[in-house]
Amino acid sequence: MKLATLRNGTRDGALAIVSRDLSKAVYAADTIAGLATLQQFLDDWDGYALAAERIAAEIDGATSNDEATRLPLFDFDPRQAMAPLPRAYQWADGSAYINHVELARKARGAEMPASFHTDPLMYQGCSDVFIGAMEPVPVVDDAWGVDLEGELAVIVDDTPMGATAAEALDHVRLITLVNDISLRNLIPNEVAKGFGFFHGKPASSFAPVTVTPDEFGPSWREGKVHLPLLASVNGKLIGRPNAGIDMTFSFADLIAHAARTRRLGAGTIIGSGTVSNKQEGGPGKPVGEGGEGYTCIAEIRVVETLLTGQPKTPFLRSGDRMRLEMRDADGASIFGAIDQVIVRYEGN
Amino acid sequence: MKLATLRNGTRDGALAIVSRDLSKAVYAADTIAGLATLQQFLDDWDGYALAAERIAAEIDGATSNDEATRLPLFDFDPRQAMAPLPRAYQWADGSAYINHVELARKARGAEMPASFHTDPLMYQGCSDVFIGAMEPVPVVDDAWGVDLEGELAVIVDDTPMGATAAEALDHVRLITLVNDISLRNLIPNEVAKGFGFFHGKPASSFAPVTVTPDEFGPSWREGKVHLPLLASVNGKLIGRPNAGIDMTFSFADLIAHAARTRRLGAGTIIGSGTVSNKQEGGPGKPVGEGGEGYTCIAEIRVVETLLTGQPKTPFLRSGDRMRLEMRDADGASIFGAIDQVIVRYEGN
Repeated sequence: MKLATLRNGTRDGALAIVSRDLSKAVYAADTIAGLATLQQFLDDWDGYALAAERIAAEIDGATSNDEATRLPLFDFDPRQAMAPLPRAYQWADGSAYINHVELARKARGAEMPASFHTDPLMYQGCSDVFIGAMEPVPVVDDAWGVDLEGELAVIVDDTPMGATAAEALDHVRLITLVNDISLRNLIPNEVAKGFGFFHGKPASSFAPVTVTPDEFGPSWREGKVHLPLLASVNGKLIGRPNAGIDMTFSFADLIAHAARTRRLGAGTIIGSGTVSNKQEGGPGKPVGEGGEGYTCIAEIRVVETLLTGQPKTPFLRSGDRMRLEMRDADGASIFGAIDQVIVRYEGN
Repeated sequence: MKLATLRNGTRDGALAIVSRDLSKAVYAADTIAGLATLQQFLDDWDGYALAAERIAAEIDGATSNDEATRLPLFDFDPRQAMAPLPRAYQWADGSAYINHVELARKARGAEMPASFHTDPLMYQGCSDVFIGAMEPVPVVDDAWGVDLEGELAVIVDDTPMGATAAEALDHVRLITLVNDISLRNLIPNEVAKGFGFFHGKPASSFAPVTVTPDEFGPSWREGKVHLPLLASVNGKLIGRPNAGIDMTFSFADLIAHAARTRRLGAGTIIGSGTVSNKQEGGPGKPVGEGGEGYTCIAEIRVVETLLTGQPKTPFLRSGDRMRLEMRDADGASIFGAIDQVIVRYEGN
């Protein structure tokens, strides 16, 4: 089942059920009594899931097999998509791809403790305002060093405190694709203060559609999505790392980590951190040289520095376009694309 | 105006308007069409405020002056209070009382950079699950070093990115009292990882009632509340520091800091950090010796260590009771008390 939240003038938008091929959609409220938003669905997943799955199957029958339907279908337009949860009660972002952590720390001259291979990194990000897949990203100052970060994330339902990794995957209701926008030049100073990220991690963007795990078939296994994540900047592919490779901590591990001292409320979003493959000989290899590339500029710059003594790819600026997408084995887009432009913020 | 959220079996509870003396209340939904929750109120503050203030005035007329009312009043019972926002979209906790920061860092042998006097510390805490004022606090392991932290917080409405300190106070809709429960023994390791607090800061608790700034009269000025915060453990007063003293960063500064690279959604909660007075000669003086004492155990332990070479007050354990309250000049409780017991978490 694929779900989207469409702009309707409210803060939480209108939940829509979307066809597998992303061509058609129907408003949940038009077919399931009382179901208006994704948060409502997550608050009572078991109460709504059967009805929603039945609608999803009927949409797919109509779009794929031309079966008759009386559903009030309309053309799905990703430009109308808000983030699936336009605001959420928790966004806990891990850093499961150790290669990214290692490169990011090399970039700022920080050590990589051995414990990072056994104890996940995780921070709480802002979740009060998320950005839609095709909305512009407002930035006050290009000198802050804007960067994209390609990530997957899962959305869980109520998860008890102390849930184990084995129990955790039962709480995964949805999988989503995130651009965890980062302001690189603000991060070293604020991390040095000891309280973690704040200014360096402004609002994140989400793909138009969020997807139940069963849609992935065998590509979702052991709490990982085994598919390449495609990242482009200004129309040029910069990365295609496989999200199932080099993920030191699976989503099962990340959820259990998040729930160690607290329960997680329905609708909590748990992020994977930047997808990154080490590749043979490490630390990475550009797409142009036959490698898997990178899903953020920071890694490109570190590799450039390691190889040539200095970075040459600049961070992003107003007018630059970022694109993230994941395709299935047949080349079909799973979540739709995050495809957005950075704009100079001109004030209220 | 004083507002509370009362348990009604839903995740977001029922918004109630409470008399100034905390004796009586009325459900918002019974008097203002369509207003069921505090988040709804914050989403459209200007739309609801006039009607709510009129109701509040009528309640106060009835409770203070025995004026006739047809409002369906009932006795206010703080045991029925959830956190004012039982779940919120953002909880950004500052650390505005530098004395606390200095003591906390001394406790773990960390340096205190000079920039801490000009650049506020702030982290994003979990906001998906908050604890009511008189609810027990579940903790898995007493060895984690449970501590209370007495804080004030403000709840803002939509605040634009880049809002200045001068603009910030116009967005303060409500003031509230928080117990920012901390697991001291988990913090040093996780702070060393560079991503800030996560396990060490589980769900926070909130006073039964949240209050508009006008209720404070002259005690609310320059973005600070100039009243003592009373903290007790197991019935014994451990602190009464004045929240208006030694607050290096006002709420105006903290809101502007939070909004530097992002806009803040309505209902964002901004915390002050642990209220702490340096007192003459510093670093603090116990209530028993005529000082203002402390609103957390960690500071007591650091002062003990500085004075005698080792801490002697233990952190809290299952069965211990924490109480936080703020009283006005006449001794009347402003928010009601946070009064809660730590319990051993026995699993789902």
